[in-house]
Amino acid sequence: MFKRFASTSTGRLQPTIRQVLVLKPTNENIYVNGWVKSVRLQKRVAFAMIQDGTSAQSLQAVFTNPSLASGLTNGASVRLTGRLSESPGAGQEKELQVESLDILGTCDPAKYPIQKQTMSVDYLRDHAHLRPRTDATGSMLRLRDQTMRSLHDYFNRNDFCYAHTPIITSSDAEGAGSTFRIAPITTEPPPHPHEFFSQPAYLTVSSQLHLEALANAVSRVWTLSPCFRAERSQTNRHLAEFWMLEAEWAFTRDVHDLCQVVEDSLKDVLRSDSPDRQALWKNGDASKRAMLDAALNETWTRMSYSDAVRELQRHDTTAPGEFKFKPEWGKGLQSEHERWLSEKLVGGPVFVVDYPAEIKPFYMRLNEDGRTAACFDLLVPHVGELVGGSLREERLDMLEQSFEKHRLDRAAYGWYLDLRKYGGAPHGGFGMGFERLISWIGGIENVRECIPMPRWAGRMLL
Amino acid sequence: MFKRFASTSTGRLQPTIRQVLVLKPTNENIYVNGWVKSVRLQKRVAFAMIQDGTSAQSLQAVFTNPSLASGLTNGASVRLTGRLSESPGAGQEKELQVESLDILGTCDPAKYPIQKQTMSVDYLRDHAHLRPRTDATGSMLRLRDQTMRSLHDYFNRNDFCYAHTPIITSSDAEGAGSTFRIAPITTEPPPHPHEFFSQPAYLTVSSQLHLEALANAVSRVWTLSPCFRAERSQTNRHLAEFWMLEAEWAFTRDVHDLCQVVEDSLKDVLRSDSPDRQALWKNGDASKRAMLDAALNETWTRMSYSDAVRELQRHDTTAPGEFKFKPEWGKGLQSEHERWLSEKLVGGPVFVVDYPAEIKPFYMRLNEDGRTAACFDLLVPHVGELVGGSLREERLDMLEQSFEKHRLDRAAYGWYLDLRKYGGAPHGGFGMGFERLISWIGGIENVRECIPMPRWAGRMLL
Repeated sequence: MFKRFASTSTGRLQPTIRQVLVLKPTNENIYVNGWVKSVRLQKRVAFAMIQDGTSAQSLQAVFTNPSLASGLTNGASVRLTGRLSESPGAGQEKELQVESLDILGTCDPAKYPIQKQTMSVDYLRDHAHLRPRTDATGSMLRLRDQTMRSLHDYFNRNDFCYAHTPIITSSDAEGAGSTFRIAPITTEPPPHPHEFFSQPAYLTVSSQLHLEALANAVSRVWTLSPCFRAERSQTNRHLAEFWMLEAEWAFTRDVHDLCQVVEDSLKDVLRSDSPDRQALWKNGDASKRAMLDAALNETWTRMSYSDAVRELQRHDTTAPGEFKFKPEWGKGLQSEHERWLSEKLVGGPVFVVDYPAEIKPFYMRLNEDGRTAACFDLLVPHVGELVGGSLREERLDMLEQSFEKHRLDRAAYGWYLDLRKYGGAPHGGFGMGFERLISWIGGIENVRECIPMPRWAGRMLL
Repeated sequence: MFKRFASTSTGRLQPTIRQVLVLKPTNENIYVNGWVKSVRLQKRVAFAMIQDGTSAQSLQAVFTNPSLASGLTNGASVRLTGRLSESPGAGQEKELQVESLDILGTCDPAKYPIQKQTMSVDYLRDHAHLRPRTDATGSMLRLRDQTMRSLHDYFNRNDFCYAHTPIITSSDAEGAGSTFRIAPITTEPPPHPHEFFSQPAYLTVSSQLHLEALANAVSRVWTLSPCFRAERSQTNRHLAEFWMLEAEWAFTRDVHDLCQVVEDSLKDVLRSDSPDRQALWKNGDASKRAMLDAALNETWTRMSYSDAVRELQRHDTTAPGEFKFKPEWGKGLQSEHERWLSEKLVGGPVFVVDYPAEIKPFYMRLNEDGRTAACFDLLVPHVGELVGGSLREERLDMLEQSFEKHRLDRAAYGWYLDLRKYGGAPHGGFGMGFERLISWIGGIENVRECIPMPRWAGRMLL
């Protein structure tokens, strides 16, 4: 008979540096694993800062036998054995008195692409596989994790079910041309007998329609899902592959309810001011940071699109030429308008509600006035549009009129109409660009630095 | 100046039925939203079961004025006003004494595709947009959410950073031909001047290589990511689009450490026996359920591949013809072998470790014996392979030999070799099919019922 293995390993995960930093010093030896961030050799003692990426903080390793540290180089991975003690030096509370050292992976300092001096964002983008070893990218990775957990807690507390919606869909997003197409197995002409899914397949641009089906069954759903746009725009807030938080829920009839959920969930995120956020803001603009912090303690402004246009027009008269685009009722707000509204007029996040129905997608619920939709955008300083949402048109006849107005193929949306036919409830929801959120709360200039391995037109490393 | 809106709405999310069911009855009226699951009209009283999908339980609504309930039909969405009280009847603790009723969305019972009698899985797959309204799909959706939270807690507690790895990659998974290709913008011949990303792009089959880069920077990472296989196989455990949990961490040198993390995290999942799991198992096989429950309280068996093959061969001699495929050292284990090992030999989950290196991918770490890899598969009853993992080859020279052996293009993996050159730490990890996990713990026969909107060859609804 086979034997049940008696493993020689402890089977336990060893303590991380984050865990070690909160340990009480004792006389027992502990093991610490990590990468060398810096080495300082003196005559009688040597110091090395060790980091393992579980914390924004490093652990100072002290070598009373400096020859032990002589082989250490930046970037090398090591295992240290020693005793944790209170640190007499400034800058850290604890340090490790090293007794022995294993170099697990060497690192030639002459060739190591991650240098101590400041590297340009372009250089680091070219080294996407090593970029996570920098302090800033490490903090960004942990901030994504913390932010997701905060949002997960919020939605769980409020009975939202986390749902995984399809990535491959049959919808080409109204033929807008910015959708990635899955290639047929062969390249024969239509009607594509060799489509893997028997019909053309695309990458999702939004989970909303799928979430509507789920919200009309389990009331409240949310997801954090990859989304794709085959757009060539190269701005600091667009990616070809990005993550979007979308929430959708039934039994809501007021766009202000939607805004409140957005505000509550984001204030939860802002409340958790981690060491990583502090590290990311360390060299950031103090006035930007102050505006961000202020957002936590105020009720966020809500204004109608019509009021917003009026304010923009007033400013355009007072300061002609400041806007490149003329603000005009019936047109979309330009990025410069959005930023002026939040940064200058309001000085914080602002919900703009009730945009003209004509410039909004087919599924938005028409207001009583017959010309605006029950929708909102959340504009935040230095980022612009962070969230967009609406009530969805749950009235079958109104939705059918909207299909006609938008010249959509009714047949392709049979299932979507079914949701209204069979006990459809009033419902609504929103979508939030996750990288834009990280950009806002982390003070990170470009969304390409807000995701580990960014993709944009012409660029896909790894 | 624009006015700050004074919203007429409460801005608060109304209580869900899950929340109502734990409220203390008072004399105050409450609102309840949901869908009608069944109606029972009597002469002096009427009853309706109301569900909103936030719980496996329904709320019984009592109409002392039965005419009020006369318009109610299954599937309609309603808003009820009434008083919560202790229920004198069997089967529920609380009920709602209804004072008034709004029908929010009607549902014609003659046309409603979701009927009370049992519907076939095929019928429900054809109605993917309404399937979430069935009890079983509702429970499955909530079980996914609960399972993900349980795993998120486990990994967070152990300092694993949740990471979003790329979905669109440059890797075609060693040209295995089961990878989805993103279509070029035009269909001109190679060298594809119109590739959106300047080079051919594919959908990811695994996040592992990307996670390795992150683990070599922040030590411990995990993800739950969509993965894609363009395989035509139509089994009950394969999907073209599925979700895979992958974890990867540095500073581990023993395959048993990997197994321990898998066992610990899955026992956390098994420990949370929710009402939804109970509902899913209600009509399930009691002996299957007993085997699942037993797994929580035992140390999971670990055996070597060589021992496994020996046991399989012994059984093949004792009961010739029971296996379709002859077990033989050096060949992969067939599905029938995997299930026999876990269901018959062990009667529970079993880790099989140290498979022949030849039948395993290039990145697995070679054992001292020179012919097996430091890897494992976790086999569980009624599902088969649930998890696969390994130590990764961190030795640069060994990895380069492996590239040669597997005839891989070294140039395409320059970044992967870099991870070993610059302070690479010993590391390992695993991948677990999330739908297979749901299938196992929920006793759900086919993974197509373990995801809201499944995709397989020839099938992509919505």
